[in-house]
Amino acid sequence: MVSLREMGERELIRNIRSIIRPPPGLGPGDDSAIIPLAGGDIVACIDSVTFERHFPKGMRYEEFGWTAAAVNISDLAAMGAEPIGLLAALTMPPDLEADSLYSIMAGMDNCAESFGAYIYGGDTKFGSGAVSCTAIGTLNGRSPMLRSGARPGDIIAVTGALGSAAAEFFAKENNLDYAPPFSSLKIPIPRVAEGISMSASGAVTSCIDLSDGLAEGAKSICSASRVGMDIFMRFLPEGHGVDEVSSETGISKEDLMLYWGGEYELLFTFDKGKKDALYDIDLEFSIIGKVTNEDVPYIIHENKRMAMENGKH
Amino acid sequence: MVSLREMGERELIRNIRSIIRPPPGLGPGDDSAIIPLAGGDIVACIDSVTFERHFPKGMRYEEFGWTAAAVNISDLAAMGAEPIGLLAALTMPPDLEADSLYSIMAGMDNCAESFGAYIYGGDTKFGSGAVSCTAIGTLNGRSPMLRSGARPGDIIAVTGALGSAAAEFFAKENNLDYAPPFSSLKIPIPRVAEGISMSASGAVTSCIDLSDGLAEGAKSICSASRVGMDIFMRFLPEGHGVDEVSSETGISKEDLMLYWGGEYELLFTFDKGKKDALYDIDLEFSIIGKVTNEDVPYIIHENKRMAMENGKH
Repeated sequence: MVSLREMGERELIRNIRSIIRPPPGLGPGDDSAIIPLAGGDIVACIDSVTFERHFPKGMRYEEFGWTAAAVNISDLAAMGAEPIGLLAALTMPPDLEADSLYSIMAGMDNCAESFGAYIYGGDTKFGSGAVSCTAIGTLNGRSPMLRSGARPGDIIAVTGALGSAAAEFFAKENNLDYAPPFSSLKIPIPRVAEGISMSASGAVTSCIDLSDGLAEGAKSICSASRVGMDIFMRFLPEGHGVDEVSSETGISKEDLMLYWGGEYELLFTFDKGKKDALYDIDLEFSIIGKVTNEDVPYIIHENKRMAMENGKH
Repeated sequence: MVSLREMGERELIRNIRSIIRPPPGLGPGDDSAIIPLAGGDIVACIDSVTFERHFPKGMRYEEFGWTAAAVNISDLAAMGAEPIGLLAALTMPPDLEADSLYSIMAGMDNCAESFGAYIYGGDTKFGSGAVSCTAIGTLNGRSPMLRSGARPGDIIAVTGALGSAAAEFFAKENNLDYAPPFSSLKIPIPRVAEGISMSASGAVTSCIDLSDGLAEGAKSICSASRVGMDIFMRFLPEGHGVDEVSSETGISKEDLMLYWGGEYELLFTFDKGKKDALYDIDLEFSIIGKVTNEDVPYIIHENKRMAMENGKH
């Protein structure tokens, strides 16, 4: 008998998928699912944040609620979908002050509002402190961006910069005197407008959000697309604080930028023949590598090429 | 400062609703929400079941998973919607055997299959043992049945029989030698076909499922519709085991049938001028009372008329 603690997440997901019937449309396994309806497909996802794992030192309840919404809105964004509605199930310690719960809901609603969505339903039960949030969105007729479409020769790119959430986390853990201009750790910003533009461009062949970090994201695309990746360390856009926190703590830049996660940039691949369509949409992104015909992602330093490790967070 | 333990559920919901923006369509406050989309409205709800509260003695993990799906499918049924997809977020103790989690998922999928739906997404985190499930459905152009449409003079009715889940629970608690022909406690059957027919009939003015018991359901309709109810004890359809378990344990039939819950019949009101439309659809139901112009539900015994109490479960 194997306990959940001993199971790898990938194996657990694979086993669950072998038990449930595969649904019409797109079922579990990508950032979001696609549910076919008579009037047009909807996009939906579910994800939980917990007090134990997603409530770092110094976070406020509003920020925890914002995060609960943001992680799910980010999963819609990774498909190119536009968020419409959220539903939230809270399992909360009985001793929690009611005001803290209201703050969580206010934070969720703020995040929903920032991305054009509303909270449609909720439920509260007693438990160890988790918010399970479902996000529902629409593609408005666009094709979804999946993890499975990357082909050898495609270019690999990422929106925004990497490692700032990790830098902020480790600065706090090590009591460094470091104040980021904006807390990407506590108020993550899903790339909704970017995802919509990217899916509309027709150039993107695969996409995933980086909530589990660049290494995990790259592995997921490689596994779903049956390709490899060469990603160049020197091309990675360095987030705020990465240099400073790495020097002060001794944690390598690579660890902060590849293996920690907790950030909500989009990792994507695109057809190099269609790159003009991407430049047309005024998207800010960095090219970081190319898709290969191998089967795992490599990180390339000046003169070393190494298979990416498993994420550490 | 007030803790969640000290808060009434109604007050908590009212306060949360005052914090979040009211969405277009129908937001929190009914059995399900209605999310307007370009291609047609969808119906959605979210509800959690927990090891602590919804895992009675003798239940199997498959049955717990079935129940997690059923409580949400029942919330769709109460609106007259047809289920399409489920998404499930599990927060599970790290020491739980992986096989138990697979059993929960298999039970959910069995329930989904029984009502024409599929599991579209999931998430697993560590926690105290809860399954938060979102159900998504469609009305296919029918008008939803809401809690708020009852009018004085309408007839009150209920599908199926009442109290069998409570009887089964208390039989087990008291170690009675009682075996129901079918476990409505462990394998609740949402009234999906009934809900669809009822909403199609055009006769139903309000509806709610009885997961919280008849008294709580009646109160919710009275509060949302601003009406009262006279419900007659002698009209209540008595579920299997109610008589026997009441005699053996001394728990009154009224407690088993009104105040415990955990069953998934539909309580509804209908326009008495349209009763033929209900008889036409071959629905099995019992008339149990009438809607009044007061503001709370009363239960009427032979010669006593008493305001219903709060649910005890």
